Amino acid sequence: MYTEFDRYLQRAREDVLSEIHKLTSRGARYGAQLYSLMLDYPLRSAKGLRPALCMAVSGLLGAPRDAALPSATALELYHNAFLIHDDIEDDSALRRHEPTLHQRHGVPIALHVGDGMLALALDPLMANTEVVGLARALRVLKIFARMARESAEGQMMELEWIRRAEWELRERDYVRMVYKKTAWYTFVAPVLVGAAIARGSSERVRALVRVATLLGVAFQVADDLLDLQGYEEQTGKRTRGDLWEGKRTLCLLHAVRHASAEERRELKAILERPRPSSEPEREALIEQLLQRVVDDDSEREAFRARLCGPPRRSQRDVDRLWSAMAAAGSFSYARRFASRRAERAAETLARACSGLPRSEHRSFLESLVAFTVERSR
Amino acid sequence: MYTEFDRYLQRAREDVLSEIHKLTSRGARYGAQLYSLMLDYPLRSAKGLRPALCMAVSGLLGAPRDAALPSATALELYHNAFLIHDDIEDDSALRRHEPTLHQRHGVPIALHVGDGMLALALDPLMANTEVVGLARALRVLKIFARMARESAEGQMMELEWIRRAEWELRERDYVRMVYKKTAWYTFVAPVLVGAAIARGSSERVRALVRVATLLGVAFQVADDLLDLQGYEEQTGKRTRGDLWEGKRTLCLLHAVRHASAEERRELKAILERPRPSSEPEREALIEQLLQRVVDDDSEREAFRARLCGPPRRSQRDVDRLWSAMAAAGSFSYARRFASRRAERAAETLARACSGLPRSEHRSFLESLVAFTVERSR
Repeated sequence: MYTEFDRYLQRAREDVLSEIHKLTSRGARYGAQLYSLMLDYPLRSAKGLRPALCMAVSGLLGAPRDAALPSATALELYHNAFLIHDDIEDDSALRRHEPTLHQRHGVPIALHVGDGMLALALDPLMANTEVVGLARALRVLKIFARMARESAEGQMMELEWIRRAEWELRERDYVRMVYKKTAWYTFVAPVLVGAAIARGSSERVRALVRVATLLGVAFQVADDLLDLQGYEEQTGKRTRGDLWEGKRTLCLLHAVRHASAEERRELKAILERPRPSSEPEREALIEQLLQRVVDDDSEREAFRARLCGPPRRSQRDVDRLWSAMAAAGSFSYARRFASRRAERAAETLARACSGLPRSEHRSFLESLVAFTVERSR
Repeated sequence: MYTEFDRYLQRAREDVLSEIHKLTSRGARYGAQLYSLMLDYPLRSAKGLRPALCMAVSGLLGAPRDAALPSATALELYHNAFLIHDDIEDDSALRRHEPTLHQRHGVPIALHVGDGMLALALDPLMANTEVVGLARALRVLKIFARMARESAEGQMMELEWIRRAEWELRERDYVRMVYKKTAWYTFVAPVLVGAAIARGSSERVRALVRVATLLGVAFQVADDLLDLQGYEEQTGKRTRGDLWEGKRTLCLLHAVRHASAEERRELKAILERPRPSSEPEREALIEQLLQRVVDDDSEREAFRARLCGPPRRSQRDVDRLWSAMAAAGSFSYARRFASRRAERAAETLARACSGLPRSEHRSFLESLVAFTVERSR
């Protein structure tokens, strides 16, 4: 079903990677390691959704293929920089089937590689002036500036919820956060950038932005479902990582909302427990010592609390969260939620494309709607 | 001596802070906490050197005061974002007399506030188009893009030395690293940006960039000396923090170079020890447990190594490094190194200013040369 779609993705990805190679090879003299680590995430197996979407919109609206290439490259660099910083913040173990950058090289180097990529992304945006002219290059830059701000605001909403142990969230709070954190830079920005490059008519662009907003939120919900129900081989991340990390997802918020008062207390107690230790061997050793030296149970518990903090989320806890979602019908609820948005996106896309000839760009966008909710990777 | 100089700094800082206030208040709706934390570092007591330097060069070369304001604001935002990320990387405890942002709010929030500031800095750079026109706005953006890359490369050089436990560095390696890590964004970029705004003649600008390069390196060496010899009340940071962190400084590299073979082995052994634990209470508790349970010294040591890692750098170690520097004459060597550069900077500045009228901008730049090496804050 996705062969043509896959080829389109693949071609965009290859073009962008070749640009990233050029950009990073320039810095080889003093920052060899910096620039080679910048290639790490981009070279891991990935879809390359953002560059392809940007190129498809720009192509749909009549711009030559090369016009969108520098911007698409900058999108991919921003995306990978965000991933590196997110992985540090979430202390994630795996990304695209391999250890995360900070797991491999430590937080200082990973943080810096991310900053370096944000800096490097400015280069193609400057070079844009020679490709699309001063005015459009500046318009694209303004979209990137807003994109970086929207992502920061969305991430911060989520971090604030975590800090305040906030679990009673309305669906629209969740949608607002996801719109800012994911939808903006994954769908809205690529569409706006593609449209700016091709100078699309404002009515058509508005419709395409509507498509992007609908798909962006659906994309995140599908991502949450994959995390809950998929396999590590598909996602390249730890299965149910969101539950271990205590992420606010549509499913989990749905389950909390539909739980009885008593059950809700139980779920929140689980969710307030800290994540498992990143040094389990050290904690096992402490436990071994404690067993040898302290006979009294409560004294041992007090020592354990001082050495290892409060009890952490366990496999049983994660299973309990999962079964609460299953019992509340949260998975099918989330699937319907995403499908409804994809349906509206398909209708809106048809409207946005009316009067335009059939093209590979248009086919790609149509397939993208289905892919967003049906994807298994 | 510095009253006029201080007033100039103060005025630039007030103007820039008021711009930062405007920028951050715009985002209040969804990112209230994000934007209020962006103000944290900028509002702490600080010199505001970069904005003042940018405005002074732009004023010296004849531009009206307001022309440099957006760029100066972006410089200050970048600087503070770098500080936040550096503090995470170095796991520093204090910044400007208060706990660092990640100590107060955790790494995820601090990392994000830094990213948010890098994003926000793009706003005034976009608004620049209405102040200095498209072409100059773009020229300024290009300088910022290079600045971000130079800093990333410099930081990475340093992180690489740390990772490889590299201590046998030539002075020119150190100067190259400092030029990229500190001098570029603290002196070279403000000068280039100010000159771009005022469209300075290329010969004059070359001389001013030379001044910036000389002062930038001298500034870092003076900073290293302050860290070694100053007091916490002056620097707002932990005294001798560089020695605790194992930073490559001109003084320390000089002492290593001038040590006997035997002494050098000793110094390097000290420098290879990890930094003190950030959880000393936990380690004390583990020690207490070990004392109670394990009688055998070597068994206890094995347990300690598995629980707490290898022995860490101690106060005695830090004192030993300090006395090696004192014995090698490293402090006066570094002071001469900085002064020589300041002298050459003063000569070059006079050449750059020849034919220009006396002005507050010119006086500021002249005082800045002296301040760079004589400063006590």
